[in-house]
Amino acid sequence: MIIVMRQGAAKKELNEVLKRIRDLGYKTHIIHGVERDVIGAIGDERGKARLQSLESLSGVEKVVPILKPFKLASREIKTEPTVIDVGGVKIGGEGFVVIAGPCSVESREQLIETAIAVKKAGAHILRGGAYKPRTSPYSFQGMEEEGLKLLAEAREATGLPVVTEIVNPADAELIAKYVDMFQVGARNVQNFALLKVLGQIDKPIFLKRGMMTTIEEFLMSAEYILAEGNRRVILCERGIRTFERATRNTLDISAVPVLKGMTHLPVVVDPSHAAGHWQYVLPLSKAAAAVGADGLMIEVHYRPEEAVSDGLQSLKPEKFRELMREINPFVRAAGRTL
Amino acid sequence: MIIVMRQGAAKKELNEVLKRIRDLGYKTHIIHGVERDVIGAIGDERGKARLQSLESLSGVEKVVPILKPFKLASREIKTEPTVIDVGGVKIGGEGFVVIAGPCSVESREQLIETAIAVKKAGAHILRGGAYKPRTSPYSFQGMEEEGLKLLAEAREATGLPVVTEIVNPADAELIAKYVDMFQVGARNVQNFALLKVLGQIDKPIFLKRGMMTTIEEFLMSAEYILAEGNRRVILCERGIRTFERATRNTLDISAVPVLKGMTHLPVVVDPSHAAGHWQYVLPLSKAAAAVGADGLMIEVHYRPEEAVSDGLQSLKPEKFRELMREINPFVRAAGRTL
Amino acid sequence: MIIVMRQGAAKKELNEVLKRIRDLGYKTHIIHGVERDVIGAIGDERGKARLQSLESLSGVEKVVPILKPFKLASREIKTEPTVIDVGGVKIGGEGFVVIAGPCSVESREQLIETAIAVKKAGAHILRGGAYKPRTSPYSFQGMEEEGLKLLAEAREATGLPVVTEIVNPADAELIAKYVDMFQVGARNVQNFALLKVLGQIDKPIFLKRGMMTTIEEFLMSAEYILAEGNRRVILCERGIRTFERATRNTLDISAVPVLKGMTHLPVVVDPSHAAGHWQYVLPLSKAAAAVGADGLMIEVHYRPEEAVSDGLQSLKPEKFRELMREINPFVRAAGRTL
Amino acid sequence: MIIVMRQGAAKKELNEVLKRIRDLGYKTHIIHGVERDVIGAIGDERGKARLQSLESLSGVEKVVPILKPFKLASREIKTEPTVIDVGGVKIGGEGFVVIAGPCSVESREQLIETAIAVKKAGAHILRGGAYKPRTSPYSFQGMEEEGLKLLAEAREATGLPVVTEIVNPADAELIAKYVDMFQVGARNVQNFALLKVLGQIDKPIFLKRGMMTTIEEFLMSAEYILAEGNRRVILCERGIRTFERATRNTLDISAVPVLKGMTHLPVVVDPSHAAGHWQYVLPLSKAAAAVGADGLMIEVHYRPEEAVSDGLQSLKPEKFRELMREINPFVRAAGRTL
Repeated sequence: MIIVMRQGAAKKELNEVLKRIRDLGYKTHIIHGVERDVIGAIGDERGKARLQSLESLSGVEKVVPILKPFKLASREIKTEPTVIDVGGVKIGGEGFVVIAGPCSVESREQLIETAIAVKKAGAHILRGGAYKPRTSPYSFQGMEEEGLKLLAEAREATGLPVVTEIVNPADAELIAKYVDMFQVGARNVQNFALLKVLGQIDKPIFLKRGMMTTIEEFLMSAEYILAEGNRRVILCERGIRTFERATRNTLDISAVPVLKGMTHLPVVVDPSHAAGHWQYVLPLSKAAAAVGADGLMIEVHYRPEEAVSDGLQSLKPEKFRELMREINPFVRAAGRTL
Repeated sequence: MIIVMRQGAAKKELNEVLKRIRDLGYKTHIIHGVERDVIGAIGDERGKARLQSLESLSGVEKVVPILKPFKLASREIKTEPTVIDVGGVKIGGEGFVVIAGPCSVESREQLIETAIAVKKAGAHILRGGAYKPRTSPYSFQGMEEEGLKLLAEAREATGLPVVTEIVNPADAELIAKYVDMFQVGARNVQNFALLKVLGQIDKPIFLKRGMMTTIEEFLMSAEYILAEGNRRVILCERGIRTFERATRNTLDISAVPVLKGMTHLPVVVDPSHAAGHWQYVLPLSKAAAAVGADGLMIEVHYRPEEAVSDGLQSLKPEKFRELMREINPFVRAAGRTL
Repeated sequence: MIIVMRQGAAKKELNEVLKRIRDLGYKTHIIHGVERDVIGAIGDERGKARLQSLESLSGVEKVVPILKPFKLASREIKTEPTVIDVGGVKIGGEGFVVIAGPCSVESREQLIETAIAVKKAGAHILRGGAYKPRTSPYSFQGMEEEGLKLLAEAREATGLPVVTEIVNPADAELIAKYVDMFQVGARNVQNFALLKVLGQIDKPIFLKRGMMTTIEEFLMSAEYILAEGNRRVILCERGIRTFERATRNTLDISAVPVLKGMTHLPVVVDPSHAAGHWQYVLPLSKAAAAVGADGLMIEVHYRPEEAVSDGLQSLKPEKFRELMREINPFVRAAGRTL
Repeated sequence: MIIVMRQGAAKKELNEVLKRIRDLGYKTHIIHGVERDVIGAIGDERGKARLQSLESLSGVEKVVPILKPFKLASREIKTEPTVIDVGGVKIGGEGFVVIAGPCSVESREQLIETAIAVKKAGAHILRGGAYKPRTSPYSFQGMEEEGLKLLAEAREATGLPVVTEIVNPADAELIAKYVDMFQVGARNVQNFALLKVLGQIDKPIFLKRGMMTTIEEFLMSAEYILAEGNRRVILCERGIRTFERATRNTLDISAVPVLKGMTHLPVVVDPSHAAGHWQYVLPLSKAAAAVGADGLMIEVHYRPEEAVSDGLQSLKPEKFRELMREINPFVRAAGRTL
């Protein structure tokens, strides 16, 4: 941690700051600059709130953190990439993994038909929401346990592992009975009560970046799960909120190489939520394969114009088959296999 | 809802769209424009996902919603302002209400000393966090039930009603035993599982806007609580995330008059989290009083440089006394009393 | 400037960085931390691009600037506030200055009628655009010199100094003949060719913050004008672009105290462009007076529903009179006079 | 244009709005909804400021534009893609075009060495800035005409066409003597005085999107140039400003397919400015090729650690050679040739 003193700060103020830093267990090192002094506080700065609070002392201009605030998620701790097994499908290895299915589980027919279609097109994992975090209380809130049962049935029918979203820590045990992977949605990325519960569960966690989450905060959310003991976290970039409204969110494609440089965890891209329009899902999927992502999550619905949620961004099964075919050369150019 | 057809859409496409709209129970009304046709879908559009999904039909350019998606929070339903009683203190009426206290409950001494100081300075409600949603798993996570007990003790000592944050729906019953009002933090504003539980509780809810929540989404989150039966929701503007980093967040001061025009619920401003630096808390508090807010939430700590969280944005008791004195002319100019 | 080395950087890499820093004329100072080394580069870091480029050297993690990049605009150079005379009206002193008038000069009748009305209501300076930077090439582009003549005529008729926007450096001489102050619009805040020309002119400059400009970049733009010799720059906060669309822009009210802490230049608020809706202009004007701004710029049009630009955010003369009356207690509470 | 009336608006208010719309030359069409009335204003809404101003009339809730505000840039006017010839290199056709070179022209040696290196690696066009729009007045401002001469010399030496940035309309004639294409930088994207001058010039224009320019505003800026008669505009996505700071800007990769759907103009990606770190330039270049861009603009410097600007995001010549080799399979997968 670097503490920058104000120009003209008094000797007494400097001494008070030095004393405080030492009281907190850090060594100090002063650089006398041309205009002002700068103090290096040497020591582990994680859990650094008390050091940061020194910024309120008289004579201090600002406190600049130097170390990354996460450990277990970091490439500095574990340099080789983590490969995670989801019901037999490996994410983060040589294979490029495609997770596909409807936004919400709406009915037996809808789920099973869509599941068979995505399986046939080459998808590796089936998605489907049984508990839906909807902006409006008047929107469809999900089929809940009934939906979980249909997901299990779809797995029987197709052999595809299944992933579903959890929104309440109290549902963890029930959901674990039915699915192969838990998804944490963008709105819950800093729902720390939920993350802690998932850190104690013996299933992989598919963690979506929030609309307003920086990459560093995103890794801190992963760290919550890792710190509780669950080391199987898959990160998903799904678009951030910006001023641009031509797309539902702005896909932060750079987040993939940035994350790859900072963490050993796998990184998947969700172009459906990012774009919000099915027309853009194919080009963004190619870009995701090219930039080095470990896979995709794609919304597919057998009749998008009747979907109770996200119809506009869902692909029809034939469009999804086309996508699987058209991304293939890009997946291979990236040295992966579909 | 307005459905805009593409330029050159075929007659057959238009007819298909018209049929779908009618099948969903809406009346249709066509405007033949110079370049394209526009269809009005007449009927209540709340729970409108299926109408929105029509955007995926061939020939449709876009679907434009016309009605606001919330009802119970709306001024159109209830024109007079809602006044909410919090342990005897009325928020939303003639009085300008100041909620003050530390970010986290850290110890008996810290809480009681600070509580007595803010009471003496004229604060109306005491705040203090017992469950802390921290970005880092390695930061202090709160004193939990021990903290709730200290809050109750501080209420005894000062007569101030108390408010604390809830982060897990499972804690609702326990917290309700100790406090006068629940707070929902910015990171949980779209934690719908939590909002639904709070909608069934017989205490007022202090709902903070998220860092990236639009005003409309914010009102939808309030609507979740209202729709479950709890009509006592207080809205809090606390800064949104933007590109500017000179302040921790950007206080969206315009949100106060915008919300006042859209809803009957009280609106409070939290300048401490918005600014992130104690120096800006006083001028922003004056601005909040002037713009028409119903009150303030201010972080006060008896020794900010030792705070385990948010020390930089906390006022010392003497600075808080100064604030109470200096905002008074602005509160009176706004036709309110402190 | 602080140079943070990567964890595990080689001794040779460190030495190479040290050599480069010294070659650029800076002294070096090393702090050996627990996990990595940190180098202080001691010396003036303005014009620091070459130091920043060291970030591309092997073994370097990041380069952190310590000093503010502006000088002449800084409070560290000049602690007392700058008061600027605009045709006899002082901005930045005890008086709270209101600049009012139409967005565009549209006709003789429109300008003169509006000018007389704002003068009568108590405005101090008249605004009116003769050169309009419009998003669309098909929108009204301004009356140009004809508009300048009408502004001069309005000054004759009312005694109010006038301000108008410049969009092309080539127009500077012509405009200088007619007006008392130049305005630089938000879209030109980093039009450095324009700023340099205005730095050589003997008139005050009213510099609007851009929609995408950080406070530091805004001060760097002021520095361009100051560095050329023109020390009369007035800063104007007019809203930044964020994800929120309930208002046209988001008024960054915190920018006022932040700027007041960083610079000696006067700071004015434009609530009309920030809000984009006339209903919010009054509450935001009160907030601006309360937060410590030196004045306001308000759009007034005698018939807003007929305005060729910005009709929605323009006040009618009677609404403007009401505003002047209603902000008065807030101006006085702030220790200023209207 | 759709005009939405307020709930409970009076018959008289509705009639007044209808009259105004007709007075402006539009036909009206009323839809009587369940809660409120909606009026369709039928006619060309470009130059629509007066219609938009109706939003300030009593009884009006909001005005919703339906048509796109641009014409000449639109795919609806010209469906086939525009191919632009830049000194013999075709942009927008089957070839994938790479523009490369230093941020600033710094010296004869620097430019010529870099030019020869990028030519050898396979670049098609040389870039280099002679007039530099720098945030700080104390940073290097460019070699000006001397730099232009060096660019012409580099073209002689390599056969590569050259592009350079213009920052002042007054320089247009001089620059036209030396270069094959003009670049408009991100900060000047809404410098309409500059755009108008470039619309009258007989050279292609390389127009960069601003950091906070929406895609629609970006196309309106292109429309300014097209409307003046110059139909050779190339659009460049170079990252937008968001809350994320891990990269200098956030590359809006979705803008490529969005633009391709809206306009016939070529779209190029600049990953160097978007990322701000040379490490991310290669993966983002692959993504740009995959998503369907027509080419790349890449910063290359023979000694990045000595660059006077943008050293951190510049590739060394050997890294650039590697990039040309590694993007090739992605370019081919996209059906283009390098």
